[in-house]
Amino acid sequence: MHVTSEQRLDDGVIEREFTLGEIPGILWMPASASVSAPVPLILLGHPPLGLRRMYPRLAARARHCAAEGFATATIELPGSGDRPRWDAAERARADLRRAMEAGEPVSDEIVDALVLPLVDKAVPEWQAALDALLSLPGIGGPVGYSGGVISVGIRLAVVEPRIKAAGLFAGSLVPRAMVEEARRVTIPLHVLLQWDDEGNDRQAALELFDAFGSKEKTLHANMGGHTGVPQYAGDAADRFFTRHLK
Amino acid sequence: MHVTSEQRLDDGVIEREFTLGEIPGILWMPASASVSAPVPLILLGHPPLGLRRMYPRLAARARHCAAEGFATATIELPGSGDRPRWDAAERARADLRRAMEAGEPVSDEIVDALVLPLVDKAVPEWQAALDALLSLPGIGGPVGYSGGVISVGIRLAVVEPRIKAAGLFAGSLVPRAMVEEARRVTIPLHVLLQWDDEGNDRQAALELFDAFGSKEKTLHANMGGHTGVPQYAGDAADRFFTRHLK
Repeated sequence: MHVTSEQRLDDGVIEREFTLGEIPGILWMPASASVSAPVPLILLGHPPLGLRRMYPRLAARARHCAAEGFATATIELPGSGDRPRWDAAERARADLRRAMEAGEPVSDEIVDALVLPLVDKAVPEWQAALDALLSLPGIGGPVGYSGGVISVGIRLAVVEPRIKAAGLFAGSLVPRAMVEEARRVTIPLHVLLQWDDEGNDRQAALELFDAFGSKEKTLHANMGGHTGVPQYAGDAADRFFTRHLK
Repeated sequence: MHVTSEQRLDDGVIEREFTLGEIPGILWMPASASVSAPVPLILLGHPPLGLRRMYPRLAARARHCAAEGFATATIELPGSGDRPRWDAAERARADLRRAMEAGEPVSDEIVDALVLPLVDKAVPEWQAALDALLSLPGIGGPVGYSGGVISVGIRLAVVEPRIKAAGLFAGSLVPRAMVEEARRVTIPLHVLLQWDDEGNDRQAALELFDAFGSKEKTLHANMGGHTGVPQYAGDAADRFFTRHLK
């Protein structure tokens, strides 16, 4: 892990950009973190739109989490931002765009081609980032995972025992194989669903929530469309992580 | 309103039993309430099992609300506790029991016969109780309604403008007419659903949530069966009322 820049934000949060091999990432540390008082870590997931484009939303979440005493970190997804594309994913993205523009249902084949390779490539990278992050002074654990591509969250929850709790956004475009994999998740889950999300299949989201094997799982459904998650829903997610990571 | 007994509980909450005509009720006032600092009121709904049987759960909720600065009150439902039965309701209850013991689906006719007269009789009584309660020193407003027979909550939310927010338990046995009436509810709603409630039709509960006309409505689904609402779900309901009544 190589730190490429560091700045102190006005609320005292230290923001460090880093690279992990070829992968860019960002780490936010609360002012309160120190070697003698290490803080828990929340990995911030995001959709595959590129870190630069997602930065304002990620930084807002990071500062919110820092105020609650959490370090947060994120890395670029494979095929997003400045990272190299691969042909199959580009084809799947084009197929998805075509289907959506034509108002046609998105086939299982498109969803699988779009999501499964992304999960396979991304998850080991997040695990490598976790290795590096947990070796830093001031970061203790336990670790939570929050938001982003829900299939990445599902796989991480299944394969990465250092992740103790996950807050997920229920979305569509979840491969059938990932719904099956969700049955193997056992960590506490806090799932947000935007009830009237125009880009979301509500029934699919409810089926996925039902599939999760976790004994403690909570679904919070709110109004307000895809980007209209109300402030109090974000606060509830904070309290979920505070309950499980502190 | 005639106060029949008064006691101070160990946390300073004043519990008063009262009668309103023939209807028994209970009022809990936080120690902090006074004429110069009146507190908001939450009406505590409950299933038609009789106030005496429901007392432990109601008193626990009341003390919890008092700690948050709310007065709470409840009255006996028509046909419950020591209040007179009526034949049609008794027949409907017997039909319901028979259907459930036989593992048969509960027909719309049974649900209507069981719930609609209860709503018609109960709601004016809760409104009369509200008249009396809001005239007491130390109780200001605004007013919330919490829990109990969800159809009573729906009707109260539609017809009683003094109720500014409602926390409801999604249950089955909701007449079709009440689902239609739910479309006319516009106040903020906080709806709890026990996801794996053995006595609950989950799909019916989700359809009812969808039907509510409120712009602000939140569904919190949790594991744990009918009586297993987790502590943090109760805390979230408290925060909902604090947001809307303070």
